[in-house]
Amino acid sequence: MALKLHGESISTCTSRAMFCLHEKGVDFELVPVNLMVGEHKQPPYLATKNPFGQIPAFEDGDLTLFESRAISRYIATKYKAQGTDLLRQDNLKEFGLVEVWLEVESQAFNPPISAIVYQISISPMLGGTTNDQVVEANVEKLAKVLDIYEERLSKSKYLAGDFFSLADLHHIPYMHYFMRTPKASLVTSRPHVKAWWDSISSRPAIKKVTAGMNFA
Amino acid sequence: MALKLHGESISTCTSRAMFCLHEKGVDFELVPVNLMVGEHKQPPYLATKNPFGQIPAFEDGDLTLFESRAISRYIATKYKAQGTDLLRQDNLKEFGLVEVWLEVESQAFNPPISAIVYQISISPMLGGTTNDQVVEANVEKLAKVLDIYEERLSKSKYLAGDFFSLADLHHIPYMHYFMRTPKASLVTSRPHVKAWWDSISSRPAIKKVTAGMNFA
Repeated sequence: MALKLHGESISTCTSRAMFCLHEKGVDFELVPVNLMVGEHKQPPYLATKNPFGQIPAFEDGDLTLFESRAISRYIATKYKAQGTDLLRQDNLKEFGLVEVWLEVESQAFNPPISAIVYQISISPMLGGTTNDQVVEANVEKLAKVLDIYEERLSKSKYLAGDFFSLADLHHIPYMHYFMRTPKASLVTSRPHVKAWWDSISSRPAIKKVTAGMNFA
Repeated sequence: MALKLHGESISTCTSRAMFCLHEKGVDFELVPVNLMVGEHKQPPYLATKNPFGQIPAFEDGDLTLFESRAISRYIATKYKAQGTDLLRQDNLKEFGLVEVWLEVESQAFNPPISAIVYQISISPMLGGTTNDQVVEANVEKLAKVLDIYEERLSKSKYLAGDFFSLADLHHIPYMHYFMRTPKASLVTSRPHVKAWWDSISSRPAIKKVTAGMNFA
């Protein structure tokens, strides 16, 4: 049975799972979810796909998973033997470092960058405004995080070591949209962070997905 | 060489790693970090333990890890064959569901519950006040999350299935302090969430750690 990813490729979280599927060279079907009519908030989706009413959801036979970072870990584990080795389970030390930087993305990087992208790019698209105070508070937080990344990436090409991993991949969705905002200089002004972004964003598997990540 | 966990057992994140070590029956040394003098914010700690200046940090020989959820995944993987099977890697379906609920804890549960515990219990201890608006906004968010937990836990004894896993364990640190606040009724009013909490908080490995988790 074909793997099904329910979501939209412009969605940061859907794209996170898609990046992983492409890096592993796994065929899947992208099943559109009609966000405009709130399909993801309606009883059938809540009951069978994700009770939290978010995209994406992933179906592998009779197993349904949600939360993009869980879906990508599952894919990276199930298809461990093919495509890019994203979790490095065969080397416990590398595996531990991948886990560290996966958590850094989740706990330290994602909150400020998602707030900035929401305020600058998404809120106006939904008919709202940009709260500049929220932007500036989160720019300050993100700058501190990126200072640590700059130091880290001066010692290794990627976050967990000299290998591309799921930890790098998880950063791509929000970085993609962030780099189109006036705050992109937070990245371009830090040479090692910029080199890292140039490297991870130019991977063929990644470009297959980002080509379709354009807001209206 | 002995495993070293740098932190303080009253810290939510340090205790998360300790719960895991005890569930796996792994010996370790808890190395105190003097938070009162800001040891975790000073150059030696930042350079050798955690550049983000947080506890805990974990040393396994020449490998140093930080981020409690990464440390616990590393321990659960390295000591897969002993103690409680926390990640269920031998059953891909169960593994996927553990990953889903690990992410739910991280993305949906942790932000509101940590905000509530901070406002009610930690801020006053640090000489600050409680922002009731922040409390109420996060109580509303947490209530919605716990409604979904109530439904989920009506179908399985634990979050990922009928087995205790790392997904349940990751909830314990904040739940422990939350249950001592006037907002504990959010849990006790939901029978399946209450039964789940009673079950996970009474495990011998967990009680070994929570016995020492008391604010002054």
